[in-house]
Amino acid sequence: MIGRLNHVALVVPDLEQAAQSYRQSLGATISPVQELPDHGVKVVFVELPNTKIELLEVLGEASPIKAFLDKNPSGGMHHLCYEVDDILAARDQLKAAGARVLGDGAPKTGAHGKPVLFLHPKDFFGTLIELEQA
Amino acid sequence: MIGRLNHVALVVPDLEQAAQSYRQSLGATISPVQELPDHGVKVVFVELPNTKIELLEVLGEASPIKAFLDKNPSGGMHHLCYEVDDILAARDQLKAAGARVLGDGAPKTGAHGKPVLFLHPKDFFGTLIELEQA
Repeated sequence: MIGRLNHVALVVPDLEQAAQSYRQSLGATISPVQELPDHGVKVVFVELPNTKIELLEVLGEASPIKAFLDKNPSGGMHHLCYEVDDILAARDQLKAAGARVLGDGAPKTGAHGKPVLFLHPKDFFGTLIELEQA
Repeated sequence: MIGRLNHVALVVPDLEQAAQSYRQSLGATISPVQELPDHGVKVVFVELPNTKIELLEVLGEASPIKAFLDKNPSGGMHHLCYEVDDILAARDQLKAAGARVLGDGAPKTGAHGKPVLFLHPKDFFGTLIELEQA
């Protein structure tokens, strides 16, 4: 079912500083900063030849990553996103296997404008998993 | 400097159970279990079209992931591994930029038989980074 690793998301306390560090110390190609107020994040992409790393900063008090940053003030690894062909079929297969989908189980429009779901990290050994219909 | 994302490493408390879950719930292709006593881990690879996920279980009391599992008994995201062309040049560039290399700074032979280094997570916003000479 799961296809490509679409991205790895890392939460950072200061996006400009993190982007600078990835650019200068690691010599990576970094996208411009995007503010996504509907998703409560500011984001840059670290563009790699085979996938991308999303660096996320809290945007607004209702940000879904605020609790994570409060718990990990230096930042940390937040989630992995796998691509699927059919998100409803994927959801139904996962639910049948006993995995919990976060929220009401209906796909939302993700930060890239595509349907996404999140799976409960307790069902995947402490890793938060996003599925995105590619 | 950094090239492909070689792998994402996740620590799990029970490798057989995790492999089963990735195979059955997520429909992923999973390699056979490998024991790497010199590295203190048992590992399976989740084979994705563009990269791989390493699931790691503690092997032995001196395992380098034992402290992580003690702190995160359900498991969790452990590190990211980026490929570099020349690990000594990468190390020197990173040190010049002020980043700390773990250990004595000399590349070790990693779990895939290639030269690797680890960078201090405090210099990269809470994410442990492995560099592997591809």
